[in-house]
Amino acid sequence: MKNKNFIEKELLLVKNFIKDEIIEERSIKDLYRYIFQSDGKGLRAKLSLLSSSKNKRINKKRLELSAVIELLHTATLVHDDVVDNSSVRRGVTSVNKVWSNSHGVLIGDYIYSKAFVLMVQIGKQDILSELAHATNDISKGELIQLDALNNTKIKLNDLENISYYKTGRLFEAAAKSGALLANSDNQFIKNISECAKNLGILFQIKDDLLDYSTDSKKIGKPVFQDLKEGKVTYPFYFAYKNANKAEKLNLESFLGKSNLNEKVAYELIEKLGGIENTELLAATYLKEATHKANLIKDEYIKQEMLKLIILALNRKK
Amino acid sequence: MKNKNFIEKELLLVKNFIKDEIIEERSIKDLYRYIFQSDGKGLRAKLSLLSSSKNKRINKKRLELSAVIELLHTATLVHDDVVDNSSVRRGVTSVNKVWSNSHGVLIGDYIYSKAFVLMVQIGKQDILSELAHATNDISKGELIQLDALNNTKIKLNDLENISYYKTGRLFEAAAKSGALLANSDNQFIKNISECAKNLGILFQIKDDLLDYSTDSKKIGKPVFQDLKEGKVTYPFYFAYKNANKAEKLNLESFLGKSNLNEKVAYELIEKLGGIENTELLAATYLKEATHKANLIKDEYIKQEMLKLIILALNRKK
Repeated sequence: MKNKNFIEKELLLVKNFIKDEIIEERSIKDLYRYIFQSDGKGLRAKLSLLSSSKNKRINKKRLELSAVIELLHTATLVHDDVVDNSSVRRGVTSVNKVWSNSHGVLIGDYIYSKAFVLMVQIGKQDILSELAHATNDISKGELIQLDALNNTKIKLNDLENISYYKTGRLFEAAAKSGALLANSDNQFIKNISECAKNLGILFQIKDDLLDYSTDSKKIGKPVFQDLKEGKVTYPFYFAYKNANKAEKLNLESFLGKSNLNEKVAYELIEKLGGIENTELLAATYLKEATHKANLIKDEYIKQEMLKLIILALNRKK
Repeated sequence: MKNKNFIEKELLLVKNFIKDEIIEERSIKDLYRYIFQSDGKGLRAKLSLLSSSKNKRINKKRLELSAVIELLHTATLVHDDVVDNSSVRRGVTSVNKVWSNSHGVLIGDYIYSKAFVLMVQIGKQDILSELAHATNDISKGELIQLDALNNTKIKLNDLENISYYKTGRLFEAAAKSGALLANSDNQFIKNISECAKNLGILFQIKDDLLDYSTDSKKIGKPVFQDLKEGKVTYPFYFAYKNANKAEKLNLESFLGKSNLNEKVAYELIEKLGGIENTELLAATYLKEATHKANLIKDEYIKQEMLKLIILALNRKK
């Protein structure tokens, strides 16, 4: 029987590998270390380790691939913080605030290209193709989202596409590239990729819900940022759909308002079913992810995927 | 005998290929078309076409590789404009000014990742490795340069490294990847790569000199931007080295001064040999690039490389 914790142990190796990657230039090293001092949840890196774990052995390429996934994810976060003008990331002040937006742009590029160097070294064409396309899709999602600022006419399908591109896509690519690395059969590749894709969208929907938390301390980051930035996400979308003319005007007045009265905004959006309908939408992705997980024949991987789904569902931060 | 203009014809095909690359999302299409409406000189794309032209035939992969090089170059320009807060690029208002910095960051990421998708499709491991490393080196050069802002203690060697990483490196990679695509012999790969590297550094030195032009209209873009942004480049470096205490203080006062008196600044830097010494440095790279070009056995490629060197030397914008 497998040691239940072997993926967690591997994740530590991956994180250390990333931190210790030798970078000669002092200025880059400082930035790089700063970014990787505070670990994220490593969910995407873990997904790749898990989906490549079929042969139950620590293999250098599996760790490298997992590091590539974590680097790609981190690069998007660093650029996101510039785009959203965010001040906090993973509990510490973001690069764009400690250094500058320029540093954020360039160290993001540096981390992206470092990921490409590593993935080329892995040397598998199908993995390269999947990760290159995923990276392109992520930036596509971010661009579509940017274009959707203050857009109350956005459709549910657009919101779901944004969630897929900006979050589900890398979950999917992490699982798929891991499965490809382990030379898995097509059925496994398909099941774990689709499971991860739905898991990622679920994760993003819960993220959007967390931004509507009435207790900012509990989740450890500022709340109502989406509304304040003019980002239409699910809770706003559903509330707006159910609103009458007067309520619509009221909702519109919240978008992009930096001194928003959070309590008032929450109460109206909650009253109009914004929270409940978002929870219902999350449930459909939960169901689909669970369904795909149950199709996975490897019992260990199936159970671990189910655990990740529960984790995403119950996330409190 | 080869048609003298075949590379120029191919370059047009490459530019059209880039423009016509189908992008579904309207918002992305608008940005993408805007960026590629104004052609650059296409020097790097041309280098790749030239170095892969051994077999004298239009080959789809050669055009794709050339497009990859142009996309990589364009992505760095778009991010540079965000970093430098520039208003003008290739004679038109930059993306960050027409849209926003956020759009600049994200469309840059989109173009980068599009380049990666295309280069993966070319399917040659050695080319992928060269281009991934080059992209990483470019961002390294930009980061080192950012760290060197207002740094009067910078060494000549640091400045040359910055010129290599941020400019010479992609010239080199364009030539090398082209040569690799054509399955060239090692001697040719080495000669054309080193020729291109020196050509790129020469090109950057001339770029730094052009920023010290006393006639902004002639070069079609704002001048003295480097000084105003606090960027120490060769003319300042050499002038500072030759300055006495009082002159040093005077020079330091120019750095980062947005309302700089350009005439006064130019006269002091010129008097202290900043311009002349930069010209002399350019001459050493000219010599080295010419030397390497003359080692190339293919007469057509040799002559074209020599023409590019003269073009870089005499560039007026």
